Amino acid sequence: MDVEEFRIRGKEMVEYICDFMNNIHKRRVTPDIGPGYLKPLLPSEPPQQPEAWEDIMKDVESKIMPGITLWQHPRFHAYFPAGNSFPSILGDMLSDAIGCIGFSWASSPACTELETIVCDWFGKAIGLPKDFLYFSEGSKGGGVIQGSASECILVCMLAARAQAIARLKESPGHTHLDETVLLGKLMAYCSRESHSSVEKDAMISFVKLRILEPDEKSVLRGETLRQAIEADLAEGLVPFFVSTTLGTTACCSFDNLKEIGPICKKYPGIWLHVDAAYAGNAFICPELKYLMAGIEYADSFNTNTNKFLLTNFDCSCLWVKDRFKLTSALVVDPLYLQHTHADTAIDYRHWSIPLSRRFRSLKLWFVMRNYGISGLQAYVRNHCQLAKRFEALVRKDSRFEICNDVVLGLVCFRAKGSDKLNQKLLSSINDSGKIHMVPARVNQRYTIRFALAAPNASADDIDIAWSIITDYLAELLESKVQNKNEIIDYLITSS
Amino acid sequence: MDVEEFRIRGKEMVEYICDFMNNIHKRRVTPDIGPGYLKPLLPSEPPQQPEAWEDIMKDVESKIMPGITLWQHPRFHAYFPAGNSFPSILGDMLSDAIGCIGFSWASSPACTELETIVCDWFGKAIGLPKDFLYFSEGSKGGGVIQGSASECILVCMLAARAQAIARLKESPGHTHLDETVLLGKLMAYCSRESHSSVEKDAMISFVKLRILEPDEKSVLRGETLRQAIEADLAEGLVPFFVSTTLGTTACCSFDNLKEIGPICKKYPGIWLHVDAAYAGNAFICPELKYLMAGIEYADSFNTNTNKFLLTNFDCSCLWVKDRFKLTSALVVDPLYLQHTHADTAIDYRHWSIPLSRRFRSLKLWFVMRNYGISGLQAYVRNHCQLAKRFEALVRKDSRFEICNDVVLGLVCFRAKGSDKLNQKLLSSINDSGKIHMVPARVNQRYTIRFALAAPNASADDIDIAWSIITDYLAELLESKVQNKNEIIDYLITSS
Repeated sequence: MDVEEFRIRGKEMVEYICDFMNNIHKRRVTPDIGPGYLKPLLPSEPPQQPEAWEDIMKDVESKIMPGITLWQHPRFHAYFPAGNSFPSILGDMLSDAIGCIGFSWASSPACTELETIVCDWFGKAIGLPKDFLYFSEGSKGGGVIQGSASECILVCMLAARAQAIARLKESPGHTHLDETVLLGKLMAYCSRESHSSVEKDAMISFVKLRILEPDEKSVLRGETLRQAIEADLAEGLVPFFVSTTLGTTACCSFDNLKEIGPICKKYPGIWLHVDAAYAGNAFICPELKYLMAGIEYADSFNTNTNKFLLTNFDCSCLWVKDRFKLTSALVVDPLYLQHTHADTAIDYRHWSIPLSRRFRSLKLWFVMRNYGISGLQAYVRNHCQLAKRFEALVRKDSRFEICNDVVLGLVCFRAKGSDKLNQKLLSSINDSGKIHMVPARVNQRYTIRFALAAPNASADDIDIAWSIITDYLAELLESKVQNKNEIIDYLITSS
Repeated sequence: MDVEEFRIRGKEMVEYICDFMNNIHKRRVTPDIGPGYLKPLLPSEPPQQPEAWEDIMKDVESKIMPGITLWQHPRFHAYFPAGNSFPSILGDMLSDAIGCIGFSWASSPACTELETIVCDWFGKAIGLPKDFLYFSEGSKGGGVIQGSASECILVCMLAARAQAIARLKESPGHTHLDETVLLGKLMAYCSRESHSSVEKDAMISFVKLRILEPDEKSVLRGETLRQAIEADLAEGLVPFFVSTTLGTTACCSFDNLKEIGPICKKYPGIWLHVDAAYAGNAFICPELKYLMAGIEYADSFNTNTNKFLLTNFDCSCLWVKDRFKLTSALVVDPLYLQHTHADTAIDYRHWSIPLSRRFRSLKLWFVMRNYGISGLQAYVRNHCQLAKRFEALVRKDSRFEICNDVVLGLVCFRAKGSDKLNQKLLSSINDSGKIHMVPARVNQRYTIRFALAAPNASADDIDIAWSIITDYLAELLESKVQNKNEIIDYLITSS
């Protein structure tokens, strides 16, 4: 495909995308296919000769689209919002066309510099303390865009691990020990409500992880952490990393940073990370900033604009208070990557696991400018208000109950009754392809998560979703009653 | 921006991209700015109100573009090719618009299934042994698209680490040992010519890494590895992972797999990884498949289509012979990610570090279909032939010498003379902004890497690059002579 064909195909693709967006509500939200559906539809070998663009796009519509779970569908209420907006798509288009790889400052200066600036912009907008910003007097901090929250937590855990090992090595009698012996002493902490990636990151980092019990509101409390740290210290272990969550995956609860922070500072060398992958974006609204109270104690903080700020995956923003601690755990520096400005410029390859990186800040810059802070606030507020609307509908119906504090765009609810009833309800709804939700265990009980997801969600969408949910509950209860009656009939007639 | 504005802006962006591509040769290849250039050009706060699209695009052209190192420029010969093509850009556009997150099969079946199928397609096209393919009788293998080669190597190292620890734990007397004690015994191996990411991955995995000396052709040999393994075994260490390279970064040399493979198999539990990030793509040409001789010994293999197969970053393909070994090191499974088909479908989140993932296979599928295997072969062959043309020009000029075996699209050369002369030559060329190359140390000597990069590189591009290089050498030598004469004059007149 040459430039002139792309001029045509690119515009056709823009039209395809517009039509897709305009008509997405007419499609099923979940696909009506089973595992392995695609294999028989495609040849088992790649084509030897070029295929015409029209033929490829025909297959997109007939073979790919029927197999997609539509995260942008107005009835998609599963997982979390997958950020999406037109300025963001335009940013990725341009980033692809530029096609630079930003592993070092020299490999594309604008790619690095815009990332630093945009992270500062965003950090200011959500109200991060100044020492997380790069352009702030006396600051050793700064922001970076990672591929996922998993990687944000991992690099911080690795940095904390490197700091802890270095500190232990200086202790009397430790200098000649193999570092793995010291590693065996390290203990990380998180809550049972932390995202599963913390557990994965601890596996990768080969450190012990103590998973703490949150309170009845799914909140990790300071005293729980303190007791665990004391018990571990008494055993000769070395607490080195605490991963907290603002806006947990299951029920959007907020760990108590104001309690946890001072405890982390009380003991030497504990790195406090705050994972606010979803909720952190909401702090762009002044009235929601109270949710990050205690952030001043944190050593690092991440939030994913690709979750709750209209930016396409991947765009996980991470800030650290001490970038030198972060990079010291990740620096490897061969000649072919060295350049004359390495002393005065950021080389983001030392901030993350992968070496190469895309020009991801472009889409976030486009989004922040084209929406403005006011536009982004309006988006967040809309989701929060609609969640409140959904909550009110649930509360009005005595057959249901609410299972979380509804603060942002997530409502956890269940039909009063057994876990099995709720499982049945959810699977019948999901099978219908009309709306899509996923379950979570909240306070030991199976609950259904209703997540606000579509960028332009409206009150109507909430009302439609609720009417589908109540229809399916009614049907389920009716069939239950019918089953009961059938059993009674059977018992009577057979007796 | 609503759908109707995107219909306009999207098409404008297509036009912008076409113009950018058509006129890229008129720009400097490296930017004429220093660190910190962008900060004063942008406001220090994000805008409160939405900004018009025209204003944003004006800033792209006036503020961003002057700071970009143009990887797609015909005079860009640094690093490696950053894959780019129109079908690939179209794939990313569609992937962004669909906006699904493919962490599990259920979260978007087509996203997972197309990835498995396309990896099989590509694996067949480059001639991987059948046990690396997913759809192959009796195979436990399969492919996955990762974000970078660093991650490909890391997940394999982690899998090998998990296997080795499990094996050690079964040994008599080891059951009650802390796993970190066992970790301290593990030894990984690579060549001095391996990519720096192997070293980084070993830091992350907290395992010892023995960096072996390659031969005078920068090739890691079997006997070197065997001796190292024997020495480490004698010390009570446990060799568990060997990372080899086909197509090294510095000079595109090929480790001798036919020697290394049998040695890895001779000792129990050594995982042999083959990193062919750049060169692996070339195996799509039958006449280049000989370069992967010995691949049958490998446990895992990666190649980045975003390097040398016209696909935009990120698209690193990794295949393993035993996917169960791979995932066993990475599985964490909370309720909110479980689904009813988990037993019969792939959940790619267990194959990689990040949980969330984009629909990356779409662009590779588009590229393979729109180019066809024949088109991709033609692209690879063009780069190889042009490298040969450049090599011939160097060889014809007695002031220069060739420093590597030119097999694919990389020529390492130097001006005969000191490292300092070559450093000066390279920096004066790079400062000019006319062409861009980076150095590498080959056989202890500072050399200049001339990498074929532009997708549509032509013979003219080679000739122009060579004439620029020789012009700068001539200028440098002349000024040297002049300096010499000036010194002689000074000595004469001052005596």
